[in-house]
Amino acid sequence: MNIIEIISKKRDNKKLSKEEIEYFINGYTKGEITDYQAAAMVMAIYINGMDYEEIKDLTIAMANSGETLDLSDISKTIIDKHSSGGVGDKITLIVMPIIASFGIPVAKMSGRGLGITGGTIDKLESIPGYRTDISLEEFKNNIKEIGISLIGQTKDLAPADKKIYALRDTIACTDSIPLIASSIMSKKIAAGANKLVLEVTCGNGAFMKSQEEAEELSTLMKKIGELAGIETICVVTNMDQPIGKAVGNSLEIEEAAHALKGKMEEDVKQVVLTIASYIIKLAGQGDNLEENKEKILEKIQSGAAYEKFTQLVEKQYGEVEYLSNIQKAKYIVPVKAETEGYVEELQAEEIGKASLMLGAGRQKKEDEIDHTSGIILEKKIGDKVEKGEVLAYIHSNKEDIEETKQKILNAYMIDLEKPEEYKHILNII
Amino acid sequence: MNIIEIISKKRDNKKLSKEEIEYFINGYTKGEITDYQAAAMVMAIYINGMDYEEIKDLTIAMANSGETLDLSDISKTIIDKHSSGGVGDKITLIVMPIIASFGIPVAKMSGRGLGITGGTIDKLESIPGYRTDISLEEFKNNIKEIGISLIGQTKDLAPADKKIYALRDTIACTDSIPLIASSIMSKKIAAGANKLVLEVTCGNGAFMKSQEEAEELSTLMKKIGELAGIETICVVTNMDQPIGKAVGNSLEIEEAAHALKGKMEEDVKQVVLTIASYIIKLAGQGDNLEENKEKILEKIQSGAAYEKFTQLVEKQYGEVEYLSNIQKAKYIVPVKAETEGYVEELQAEEIGKASLMLGAGRQKKEDEIDHTSGIILEKKIGDKVEKGEVLAYIHSNKEDIEETKQKILNAYMIDLEKPEEYKHILNII
Repeated sequence: MNIIEIISKKRDNKKLSKEEIEYFINGYTKGEITDYQAAAMVMAIYINGMDYEEIKDLTIAMANSGETLDLSDISKTIIDKHSSGGVGDKITLIVMPIIASFGIPVAKMSGRGLGITGGTIDKLESIPGYRTDISLEEFKNNIKEIGISLIGQTKDLAPADKKIYALRDTIACTDSIPLIASSIMSKKIAAGANKLVLEVTCGNGAFMKSQEEAEELSTLMKKIGELAGIETICVVTNMDQPIGKAVGNSLEIEEAAHALKGKMEEDVKQVVLTIASYIIKLAGQGDNLEENKEKILEKIQSGAAYEKFTQLVEKQYGEVEYLSNIQKAKYIVPVKAETEGYVEELQAEEIGKASLMLGAGRQKKEDEIDHTSGIILEKKIGDKVEKGEVLAYIHSNKEDIEETKQKILNAYMIDLEKPEEYKHILNII
Repeated sequence: MNIIEIISKKRDNKKLSKEEIEYFINGYTKGEITDYQAAAMVMAIYINGMDYEEIKDLTIAMANSGETLDLSDISKTIIDKHSSGGVGDKITLIVMPIIASFGIPVAKMSGRGLGITGGTIDKLESIPGYRTDISLEEFKNNIKEIGISLIGQTKDLAPADKKIYALRDTIACTDSIPLIASSIMSKKIAAGANKLVLEVTCGNGAFMKSQEEAEELSTLMKKIGELAGIETICVVTNMDQPIGKAVGNSLEIEEAAHALKGKMEEDVKQVVLTIASYIIKLAGQGDNLEENKEKILEKIQSGAAYEKFTQLVEKQYGEVEYLSNIQKAKYIVPVKAETEGYVEELQAEEIGKASLMLGAGRQKKEDEIDHTSGIILEKKIGDKVEKGEVLAYIHSNKEDIEETKQKILNAYMIDLEKPEEYKHILNII
């Protein structure tokens, strides 16, 4: 076998065998296949596509390219949850402690944010002391002892995916559904889960702009999951506007803490209840989703869910008292409506960019994050607004926020007519 | 403009503008665009293709990526001739002195051989002393003084083509007609010609395996030439069997010298007369091709053509006496027919590979060439053969030639029936 023959096969739109895909992934991981050969291959995959079997083989080859976690000694059902990313997306932070409060083991590795979408790990690190880089041994111990651990993705997990992901960014091959699906699924497979709920975001604040694309990606990931022996459910959520009120790291931790104590925004509530009820079903603790939702609300009301969250924070060296008293940024400035009417649009992408300006996210991998900066959205789609009423608050450590303010105002479209109801959950696949 | 946007355009099968193509070529030449970005771009071009205008823009951008020659002070008509390569192809060595003997300036830069096809420069270098690396000033002076110079391609000519050519080899993108056409034409444009005859070889010993492909390439190069203001004629020649008798560097010099003195094999004669008569027409010295052929034969008979060759060799520091007394390899071994009949096939590719085994060509760029080794073909397609009769002679400096002998025997297919007449010239485009 040689890489030139393999490239030429995909170039000519022929199907690659499992062995050929493994040869490519292993050779590239080891550095025996060069970046330019991989670039040619990835471009050929982008243009000519792959069938289910090829995508499954690619995913599994990437999953096996480095360390793989075996969590079978903890439980035979290992649940994972993943979000394809969105603005203000703190769902993982709320769902996972809820699940753990049911006695279902939660072993979650999360990524950092890049671009307008924040990462769960960055949010957790805004809690003073919280360590996302504990050893895998400690990770497993925590799951055994308190039923939950949330850490950053280890360096050695799916290294082939890391290389290909970085490459795709430089060669205009990011928005390929087979490549996105195999990237996500390879990390999930390597992380040892056998049941998976995927929050597939779509809309202007997500990678998938249309519902159609999000559904295509969902169908593909579900199929890969099936072929790889992982039961997978995709919840397609609407990311035309940010989810919840807070956008920014410690602000989102605060919102998550409130939510776990029962104070949830309507959109957050719908998404949390849907995802969590499916996880409970996957874990074999109840087939009736409506009943599961009732049980979840009970866990929240009883304080069990929030207690799991504080246990998690404490176990990973974080200051629990910070959760009820988060540090605020230097300047908190209101953004006021210039006209009256109803919020017709609240563009997630623009809000994401505004939060980037404040330092709440990264434009480049090496950027430092300003944990306390961010935006609190007081008005969302469908809300009535009076002229001069506060639409949002900017939390900033920089004094000059004029441009950010303007960006937030631009994100709001206010109209006299009441818009159609905004759907939070678009589909379950 | 940025390279990711440009790559994504070609990825989506959209037409690139002149400016975008220039941005890519200049950036890659300077190293600002990486090899992997170029690889992705080349693969997208390979799969999605380019239209005439894009190919012309690509060709001109590559031509302008380095040094360009201006020969307009020598003559307003600058003739160039190029072969797409073949086994035993010494046509350039014969045609160019003939043309110069007409007083038409010949300024020719040639390449080295790689793979089974030899390069004109390697052949010239088998003449002791001959320098293919004289300065451009000397090159121009020689053309002014004796009307001819043949040198190697300078390093700075079309550097973008060199980089892309090397890259294509490693990413399965060699056999793309738009990329082959732009590679050939960019060098011709940079070398300063305004009239061009292309010998487009096809058959098992050439890059283009079928006549259809060779014609497609010819049409494309002619069109690029037109768009770039270079009058171009393509002569499609048959390379199913090697051309002439000799394969190997000094052996081909000897055959060329014989040809210029009037002793030409039939196939060599047909191709030489066709190409040279078109060049004379392009140079404005006669529109009647048959009359041109008569004049060419006169130049040969009068000794004028051979004299030009000796002048060339002398001017570039070569030993003229070597031409009539070439050094022979240590071992000259006959390969004899094992059956009787007619030569039905004489596969050029196999003969090329056999000559490679002897050291007459390069498998890798850095390989040294054994100038005196090679093969003399005594029997060619259509010839009658008795059992035990000599088919070919191996000229070797290595004693062990058993494998080479076998390869040559395999190249010959002998059949009792007389084959159809072998056509040397397939088309003029």
